[in-house]
Formats: sequence, structure tokens, C-alpha cells
Amino acid sequence: MGAQPTVSDVADVAGVSRQTVSNVLNAPELVRPETRERVQAAIHSLGYRPHASARRLRTQRSSTIGIRLDPITQDGISGSILDRFLHALTEQADRQGLRVLLFTAAGPEDEIEQFRRLSDGADVDAFVLTSTFHGDPRTEWLIENGRSFVTFGRPWGIDDMTDPEHLWVDVDGRSGLRDATRHLLSTAGSRIGFLGWPSGSGTGDDRRTGWLEAMREGSGLSDDELAALEVASEDTVTLGADAVRRLQAAAGPLDGLVCTSDSLALGALTATAGRLPVVGYDDTPVAASLGFSSVAQSLDEVAAGVLELLTGEQGGRVRPPGDVPDTRHRLITPRLVVREGPPLIGSR
Amino acid sequence: MGAQPTVSDVADVAGVSRQTVSNVLNAPELVRPETRERVQAAIHSLGYRPHASARRLRTQRSSTIGIRLDPITQDGISGSILDRFLHALTEQADRQGLRVLLFTAAGPEDEIEQFRRLSDGADVDAFVLTSTFHGDPRTEWLIENGRSFVTFGRPWGIDDMTDPEHLWVDVDGRSGLRDATRHLLSTAGSRIGFLGWPSGSGTGDDRRTGWLEAMREGSGLSDDELAALEVASEDTVTLGADAVRRLQAAAGPLDGLVCTSDSLALGALTATAGRLPVVGYDDTPVAASLGFSSVAQSLDEVAAGVLELLTGEQGGRVRPPGDVPDTRHRLITPRLVVREGPPLIGSR
Repeated sequence: MGAQPTVSDVADVAGVSRQTVSNVLNAPELVRPETRERVQAAIHSLGYRPHASARRLRTQRSSTIGIRLDPITQDGISGSILDRFLHALTEQADRQGLRVLLFTAAGPEDEIEQFRRLSDGADVDAFVLTSTFHGDPRTEWLIENGRSFVTFGRPWGIDDMTDPEHLWVDVDGRSGLRDATRHLLSTAGSRIGFLGWPSGSGTGDDRRTGWLEAMREGSGLSDDELAALEVASEDTVTLGADAVRRLQAAAGPLDGLVCTSDSLALGALTATAGRLPVVGYDDTPVAASLGFSSVAQSLDEVAAGVLELLTGEQGGRVRPPGDVPDTRHRLITPRLVVREGPPLIGSR
Repeated sequence: MGAQPTVSDVADVAGVSRQTVSNVLNAPELVRPETRERVQAAIHSLGYRPHASARRLRTQRSSTIGIRLDPITQDGISGSILDRFLHALTEQADRQGLRVLLFTAAGPEDEIEQFRRLSDGADVDAFVLTSTFHGDPRTEWLIENGRSFVTFGRPWGIDDMTDPEHLWVDVDGRSGLRDATRHLLSTAGSRIGFLGWPSGSGTGDDRRTGWLEAMREGSGLSDDELAALEVASEDTVTLGADAVRRLQAAAGPLDGLVCTSDSLALGALTATAGRLPVVGYDDTPVAASLGFSSVAQSLDEVAAGVLELLTGEQGGRVRPPGDVPDTRHRLITPRLVVREGPPLIGSR
């Protein structure tokens, strides 16, 4: 055969004009049924393929969403949350005929460079961003350059709830930690410790507030006493275990611990040989298989919220940047998954 | 401004022909430096964007690799291996200017339908397949229809090593389990059990062969005695624990267990309260954070092999389907990661 068949070849075989072939492909309702069938038979017999790139060029739409794939973290327990979000997003986007294009970036500036390349080339109609942080230059660039985007994560520090140009979906971690703390207050005792990340992370500080609110409301302890019950650690199992040992040495006996991640919760369990009730965050496969309690974020709900903000209620097509929906964010309530505590594992 | 600037607008502003503009974009070496600078200044001042879709239409290449995102498994411990592969592939593809497009599919037939849509539309140049199985209709379709593809996983059951049309990369699980079993034979005793998947999975049967080879070579046990040391389970922590309890009841005391996955290994650890040396497979974050031994597959090596088979040594461009490399597969040797065994976790 050699070259791919063209619209002209189809037109010749069907005995119609090229415009008629184009109509059959793009506006079939304009073409009489007999003609339509003849053209479709010609398309079929020649093996002609209407070219997605040509369609994109005409419509200036790619039906594709770009998302940066974060590097795998060393530890990987809570990092898998973004993989689960990616799965939910890809599955739901697929149902709307939208695709997900992945890229990587060495940092925010590099990610902005990728935004530029991918939107200049019309490779993507919109971006989804994860791991937002205070003063994030990526969202500033996207707003300044009029690109469509939604973040999974609040624009920490900016006017979160009202910024009309920043569409976001997030999970209400504060309410999650409040529920976790209330659960331990009602089942374990009043001295519920908090194992969190170093302050300065929007997400971590928000979750800590939930612990503090529940403790002020239900523990009967003073703010000074509460300050002695918290400790911070980077997000790994070993460092979490070390932090809990420090906390126990300084604060004396605890009745339970709430943690900002399952990695830290697993550290707390190893430091206390599972004798202390511990609640983690993210309800990872690790929490489920070891059987400890954790706060679950519904990533299906997050993905649905992101797509609804991107495409509107009818779905299937990304809104142009100027077309802002009435409600510009979704704050999703997480759910505490209570488990009995891990079975005995280990040989020490 | 309204409409996007076109090549004609650039030509008008620069005072050159449209062909010259096109040459500056596609074959700048044909254009005199002064003219080139004038055209580039016009491109810059108008904000003209050379359109990726137009470039694709011209070149018939998308510089994009399509890959199906598997559904998240309930358990998710070993499932994350494909996410780690996806990360490695995306990062390495990015360095070659190639992108990764994700899609989902309800099953093999649906995946074939996606192959058809994505290659008909020239959305992707090639496919990467995971989770291959015996008699896989997907690879048959891709070969019959002349599409470029590489699988992560052997074409189990077909003439694995010599099929010239099926390019694949896989990890030598047999050698991984052989190493794991030899390690336990030399450190724990001769009665090393095998906890695997129900027979019929190419990957699982291959790993089992590694255990059997090492046991025949080093345990001094007869084949009948060996048959009593193995048990099969679906790939979850709880079912794995049940299977190990059955095995212990039937076979009597064991000196250690090798498992086809970290999920099963974790089940074995909970069933034996960590008193038995256990080796898992995949070296997941769970194995690393709980501290049990596991067989590690280098997913960076797998991704590098997949890309090399797709693009050839120079990289950056997917080979056309007929252009078959000299060596058509890569079998990567995994590495045993020895750890001391988990610290005590749990309250039973």
C-alpha cells in the first residue's frame, strides 16, 4: 500500500467531494443517510484513519490533562496516596473521554517550564497539580498566563476560600485528626499525644489544629500540658519511632497517639511494641494489612471534584480558563477507619 | 487580540514567505542567520506558538508512549510495583523528550479497543504493556496490526526467547527465589517452605521453580518431602496467614519461608508472630519499614530496558514497528535484600 489513505482517496472511492467526507467525520447530521453509508464504506475499505492531530489542530483541544508524577519517596508508605489519586483520576477521566499525560520535573521552576512546553504545543487542555505549598510559584504562573488548572491541595496562605482564579479540591485533615483524637479520648484516656511533621507545612499544621481542638474540648488538660504532649518528626518510620521514644521520656506515660501519617504511626507502633493505641493518616495498605486505625481520604471523591471543576457538570470537555464555575473549591471530609490494633509481629 | 497568530501573521511581520517561516521552525539550517533572527523576533513579538498537533500531523509521530494503568488492588502492597515502574518509565522517557499517556481498560478486549483508538489517532507511537499472561490476546493484536510495543513481562507460553516480533523485558524471578532459598538454607535450616500463588501464573510458577531448584540442590530432602513444604494462596495478607497456619499444621515445624510476594510474606509473619525467618518478593516499602528480607527488582533497569528496546541506543524516537533490534529481550537479575527481621509490633 505505501502511503496512508487520505480524505481525497475516500472522496474518490465514495464519489463525493472532500467536504462531504469531512462532514461525515465532523458533522454527520448534515449528510444524507445513503451518502453517509457510502462514505463510511469507503473509509472502512480503505482503512482511512481520521487523524487525532488534525482534529486537535481544528478544535485547538487535546482532551488531555497534564499531571506531574512526583518522585517516589524513599519511604513510600504515604507517598502512594498520590498514586491512588492518579488511578482514580485516570479512570474517571477515561469515562469522560479525557486522557492523562504524565511528565516529571526536578522542581517548581522546571515544572513551570513543562507547563509552558505542554500548553504552547496544545498537548494538554489543563493541568492538575498536587503537593501545593505556601507561596507556590506554579499556581501564580498558571494564573498569570491564563492556563486552566485545578489543584489537589489548598493554596496555603493565600486567601484560600475566595480566590476566584484558583480552583482546588482538598481533604479536611483538621476534621480527620479531630475525629481520631475524640475517638482515642473516648476509648483510651485523656493523655493523647500528637506525632506530626515539623511546623510550616500547610497540611501538617492543619491536621495538628484538629488534634488541638479535640484536646482542648475533651481532655481537661491546660495548654501548657498539651504542649508537652506533642512531638515533630520527618516522615519516616525510623525517625517517627525515635520521636516517640523522646516524647515518652519527656512527657511520661501516654494513653494514645494520633499521627499525621501512616509512616509515623508505624514508627509509633514499633517504638511502643504496639502497646499504645495509635491512629495514622491516609489509610494506606500498610494500615489495612497491619490492622491499625487510620484516617481515610476518599481519592475517588477528590478525583471527581477535580474533574467537575475542570469540565463542569456535563463533563467531557475542559472549560476554557475564563469560564469559572460558581463554587470554586471542594473540601472533602475524611473518615476514621477504626481497627483493633496490629497482631503480634516481630521477634525482639 | 482574539484569534491565535498564524504562520501567515509571522510571515507578514517578518516580511518573508510562509515557507521561510516553516523552514525556521523545522529546518533552521536552511535559513540565513539574519532572516532567521528576523523571523524569530516576529514569532516572539506575536506570541506565535508552533503547534504540536501540526507538527505531529506532519511527522506522524507523537513522541508519546501509551500505557494502561492497572486498577488499584484491594491489598495494594505488591500492586505498587507497577506504580514504581511507571515512575521510572516516566522519568527516563522525559529525559529523552518522550511522554507517557495513561489510559484504563476493563479487560484485555477493552485494552485492545484503546490500542486501536490511540494508534488510529496517532496519539501514541508505541505501547508498553504490563501484567502479561499466557495466550495474551493483546500482544497478538499488536503484532497482527503492526504496532510498536514492548512488554514488561515475558510472553509466557509462547516461544519466549526467540519470537522476533515480541520485544520484552522481565525480571528473573526464578533466580531471585533461588537466592532467597539458598540464603535461608545457609542461615536457618533445611526445612524451608514455599508460600506461593495458585499454579498457572507464569510469574508465580517461575518463582516457585527457583525455590525447588535450591531445595533439590541444598536441602537433602526428597521430592515427596518437598511437596509437603509448599502451599498456595491468593495474594492477600490474611489469606497468606491462613495458608501458613494450614502448612504448619500439616507439615510440622519449618525453618523458614520464601514467598512470591511481600503481601504473602507479611501474612506469614503475622501467622508466626515473626518467629520464623521469612523472605518476601518486590522489596516494597512495607518490607523496608517492617524490616524483613525481600527480593528487589530494579525498576530503573526495567524501565531503561523497555526504553532501549523502544527507541534503540540513540534514544529520543520510537522505532517504527518493522525496525527490530538485534537483541529482543532483557532478563534482569533481581537482588536479595537481607534484613534482620521485624521489630516487635502488636499487642496480642
